[in-house]
Amino acid sequence: MKIILASASPRRRELLTQIGLEFDIITADVEEHSESQDPSRVVMDLSALKACAVLEQLGMQQMFQTEDILVIGADTIVSCDGRILGKPKDEQDAVSMLERLQDRGHQVYTGMTLLYRRAGEQSPVRKQFYEETEVFFYPMSSAEIEDYVSSKDPMDKAGSYGIQGFCARYIKGIRGDYNNVVGLPVGRLYQEMKGLLGDEEGSNI
Amino acid sequence: MKIILASASPRRRELLTQIGLEFDIITADVEEHSESQDPSRVVMDLSALKACAVLEQLGMQQMFQTEDILVIGADTIVSCDGRILGKPKDEQDAVSMLERLQDRGHQVYTGMTLLYRRAGEQSPVRKQFYEETEVFFYPMSSAEIEDYVSSKDPMDKAGSYGIQGFCARYIKGIRGDYNNVVGLPVGRLYQEMKGLLGDEEGSNI
Repeated sequence: MKIILASASPRRRELLTQIGLEFDIITADVEEHSESQDPSRVVMDLSALKACAVLEQLGMQQMFQTEDILVIGADTIVSCDGRILGKPKDEQDAVSMLERLQDRGHQVYTGMTLLYRRAGEQSPVRKQFYEETEVFFYPMSSAEIEDYVSSKDPMDKAGSYGIQGFCARYIKGIRGDYNNVVGLPVGRLYQEMKGLLGDEEGSNI
Repeated sequence: MKIILASASPRRRELLTQIGLEFDIITADVEEHSESQDPSRVVMDLSALKACAVLEQLGMQQMFQTEDILVIGADTIVSCDGRILGKPKDEQDAVSMLERLQDRGHQVYTGMTLLYRRAGEQSPVRKQFYEETEVFFYPMSSAEIEDYVSSKDPMDKAGSYGIQGFCARYIKGIRGDYNNVVGLPVGRLYQEMKGLLGDEEGSNI
């Protein structure tokens, strides 16, 4: 079986490698759009857009028609008081988001879409799920927020922080899967893959 | 101020570097012993033994008497049903521990001792604390346990697993600080350092 990660994120690639999977990375340009306001629905919708676009691309290539394929799509967002926080527009925007997140908890959602197509078959089996993790911040002073933002680390990240980096000094704790906050809930993913492939012993993953 | 990490653990070094601290590593041989059966007490006792032994060593060296010194000691254990799980003796022991941990939750404790000695002063200010994190495993089949143990990853780790590696495929979630499970609760550590140094703005750490 060929596993394809439909994401260019280096953090997702690292996590999937970490749990021992071999895979290729193929991405497709999609317009990221969801009708929903519900964070869990939004991330599942966007993960589906990414995975479907990649499977469609593959469909045109002869080499991918003779083997089983599993395409993995993922999307992660940060949510606070029901408001979705994306990547910051600029440093001032990053400061505002961190002012909102400090000294309290918020939610991180990763939605996933798995498309499993057996060799020779037309339509894939589709599995969708999401994981939610609560993240709690310590209080941050204005000096600490400005210091962190000027490091540029927040600028390419949803919610304006990376849990793996310097910002760990402000993280009090979490409830849920840590890797879900990084961008890929690999525990849940592995369990869902076992179910999808009918491999309850996990012998072939 | 000179910061000294009294631990040879590469994972602790990495975490402390990650939050932007500059420090030296100095370790001392100590006999790890605690009278207590209470896991939180045990890790605080052992962290104190390590930190005190290092500060004692430094006391004899002229160069460390003319500047402020902060020595950081840490110890981590895994506890399940009140039983402390150390590093496995052999592969069979690792299998037994994982059989015990799978499909349920257990606790990880890291105890820390901070010794802060100002230049020219004899006795250090001492700060002790611990963090507790609950870790939840998915079910693991016998094949999965044997597969993981044969990778050797469990052999040098308390509780026979490393949350950062391959084993992430079996982790359902946690409650508390993730870095505490890795071996150093850097969020709490940074907060305690601010208090100890009287630097509420965090401007000088």
